[in-house]
Amino acid sequence: MMPLEEQILSTLKRAREASRSLALASTTIKNSALLSLAKALRANASKIVEANRKDLEGAKSSGRTGAFLERLTLNDARIEAMATSVEEVAALPDPVGDIIESFHRPNGLRIDKVRVPLGVIAIVYESRPNVTIDAGVLTIKSGSAVVLRGGKEALATNTLLAKMLARALEEAGLDPAVVAFIDSSDREAIQILKRHPEAINLIIPRGGGSLKQALEGSAVPLLPHFDGICQTYVDRAADLKMAEEVCFNAKVSRPSVCNAMENLLVHREVAARFLPAMATRFIAAGVELRGDDAACAIVPKMNHATEEDWDTEYQELILSVKIVDSIDDALAFIRRHGSGLADAIITSDENAAARFEREVDSATVYVNASTRFTDGFEFGFGAETGISTNRLHARGPMGLRELTTYKYIVRGDGQVRK
Amino acid sequence: MMPLEEQILSTLKRAREASRSLALASTTIKNSALLSLAKALRANASKIVEANRKDLEGAKSSGRTGAFLERLTLNDARIEAMATSVEEVAALPDPVGDIIESFHRPNGLRIDKVRVPLGVIAIVYESRPNVTIDAGVLTIKSGSAVVLRGGKEALATNTLLAKMLARALEEAGLDPAVVAFIDSSDREAIQILKRHPEAINLIIPRGGGSLKQALEGSAVPLLPHFDGICQTYVDRAADLKMAEEVCFNAKVSRPSVCNAMENLLVHREVAARFLPAMATRFIAAGVELRGDDAACAIVPKMNHATEEDWDTEYQELILSVKIVDSIDDALAFIRRHGSGLADAIITSDENAAARFEREVDSATVYVNASTRFTDGFEFGFGAETGISTNRLHARGPMGLRELTTYKYIVRGDGQVRK
Repeated sequence: MMPLEEQILSTLKRAREASRSLALASTTIKNSALLSLAKALRANASKIVEANRKDLEGAKSSGRTGAFLERLTLNDARIEAMATSVEEVAALPDPVGDIIESFHRPNGLRIDKVRVPLGVIAIVYESRPNVTIDAGVLTIKSGSAVVLRGGKEALATNTLLAKMLARALEEAGLDPAVVAFIDSSDREAIQILKRHPEAINLIIPRGGGSLKQALEGSAVPLLPHFDGICQTYVDRAADLKMAEEVCFNAKVSRPSVCNAMENLLVHREVAARFLPAMATRFIAAGVELRGDDAACAIVPKMNHATEEDWDTEYQELILSVKIVDSIDDALAFIRRHGSGLADAIITSDENAAARFEREVDSATVYVNASTRFTDGFEFGFGAETGISTNRLHARGPMGLRELTTYKYIVRGDGQVRK
Repeated sequence: MMPLEEQILSTLKRAREASRSLALASTTIKNSALLSLAKALRANASKIVEANRKDLEGAKSSGRTGAFLERLTLNDARIEAMATSVEEVAALPDPVGDIIESFHRPNGLRIDKVRVPLGVIAIVYESRPNVTIDAGVLTIKSGSAVVLRGGKEALATNTLLAKMLARALEEAGLDPAVVAFIDSSDREAIQILKRHPEAINLIIPRGGGSLKQALEGSAVPLLPHFDGICQTYVDRAADLKMAEEVCFNAKVSRPSVCNAMENLLVHREVAARFLPAMATRFIAAGVELRGDDAACAIVPKMNHATEEDWDTEYQELILSVKIVDSIDDALAFIRRHGSGLADAIITSDENAAARFEREVDSATVYVNASTRFTDGFEFGFGAETGISTNRLHARGPMGLRELTTYKYIVRGDGQVRK
């Protein structure tokens, strides 16, 4: 075994041991650690900014620019936002100990299905230092130890934040080893983490394509949050004014995120009435439109879409537009090109809505609303621990609950099995 | 790609396509397929026995004996039992379409969390042909396509049973391709299945150590059902008569299964009163006892346990016995040696019971009852699709529900995200 692997495994072992007492810690104690972290973040804002400046200089000198530097940057306002979000997590109900179900058996056994922590959860993320705090406190509130592995460009900032997190835990009387910060910038670290299912119960990747690649073949289960190719289908029975508002929101309000619309499907019977005004509004907002032949015939300002466009998550102000002959065509398109994250129908026809709800096999299926609501906060979970594109364990927006598992507690008075 | 891989992938592709219509099939249609299968099993009992005889001859000539042949054997009574169990699955409530939760958001959105099929589930099992039918109908009732890969010694029997399953589906108007029977006896088939997460959503292994090894490093998520090292702790506040009945049941009623007791822990203060009568009863039932020094001092007929004994799943009439000084010692033993499947405390002390419930991190935790109840039927799930030793997705006894996932259906009247 290499020295790095040995070192990481020993950190993980300490985290596993410490996770046992965290799993049994009271809500009050966990919250007291969180509140003391919020205080420390505010009190040490200038130190954090200083550490972050080192990271920014390093990133600039290695040629990073634009959005990358923007995500890496922490300033007073962002540190205040982190502190506030830590306080919000402290205010959330503790999922641990919830009785999910309770039932009696004819032989007198009473069975409670009780929510318990998962154990050890690894968060693997890119150079966004706020994730160190956000994901760290969510995992700890859920009662699990957290393994933090951030992007190497944020190492100085993350190291300081992880230390503050550990200190806050210690102040509350918790074992600081529940935060396993991987301080190696070696890319091999991710390869080591993914090889050890006995040490880590779950890996949650927060980031894009290179992370997806790095985690391929992971022996540790993943709750990935990868592709988002979302469709909105404007049915022939749509309220066209509503359709315009919803489609505009789905594409323009935040084009860089996974729940933004990438493909707009319009029923042939309403296309000529709907598309011209819609297109004008999109174009005025800076959206590049790429249509099929029928769409381009209605709106000549559109570019021609290629086959590749239907399968592309642009994450920017580009939208593909297709005219479909029927709801069946729309459903077939979604099945073929969608990524199963969020799809919407705009219609006043109850039968069309019912078919869409039933037949679209996506994590979130919308009738007359924007796909942009696919998000833990918008679903009322009070937190966002990612949006799962998995079908197992958790699907769609995840809150604290989705970071837990359960056990059955069975109480009897001497029952034996016949 | 090898021809075998190509062939399997094309079967899986057809299963995936067919799974879409199965996912939308009504309960009535699924049940009608099941009932027609039950009828066909009864009508073709002699044909099944004949195919099974071929398998039995082959297995004998390749040197198989005893329990192996016993599990491989189908006779009229067993075929009748299979048919009855198919009818029982038909009578179970359909989990698909269940509304798990329903909530409103302040912006007027109504969100339903609805149970939907997983997609394609592979069952990989040993030479027990009844699994072809049992696991096949449970998966189909849950709305997923099923990939069946049984032990090579049962190939003739399984081929016939899978054909009957496919024919019954066809008779009900369902696509028979939802049963993907892997008719290759090549061990490579399992390696192919585990490499294709895009084709299979879940693998459920039904069987022992060699299967565990074959599935190591699977890229497809597993719901394994592997080790069962179960403990019963007789507390100092135990009703000793109850303890004797429960311990006897936990060890002797069916020693070969995963929920049978392997380690008996007895509090020092009651050991001298409890162990002699308990040991006499175990020994009379043919149980070999292996104790630590303190236990052997009380019951000289015990053999001395080695360190290895505490970590061994005997699956036969052998029991390790340890005297512990406190509930803390018992908890520490369970943490160190248990497999997290089923553990019990016998006590009249509410505080001891509460600590045990809280601190034992096992799928099923018992107070004053036998660990043998860890089973889908005993939990009232109406079916047994395995007992998960996973922490993710499903833990402990699994019924039909545990073979499904969910999606969110969001209904609005034009909501957009601010």
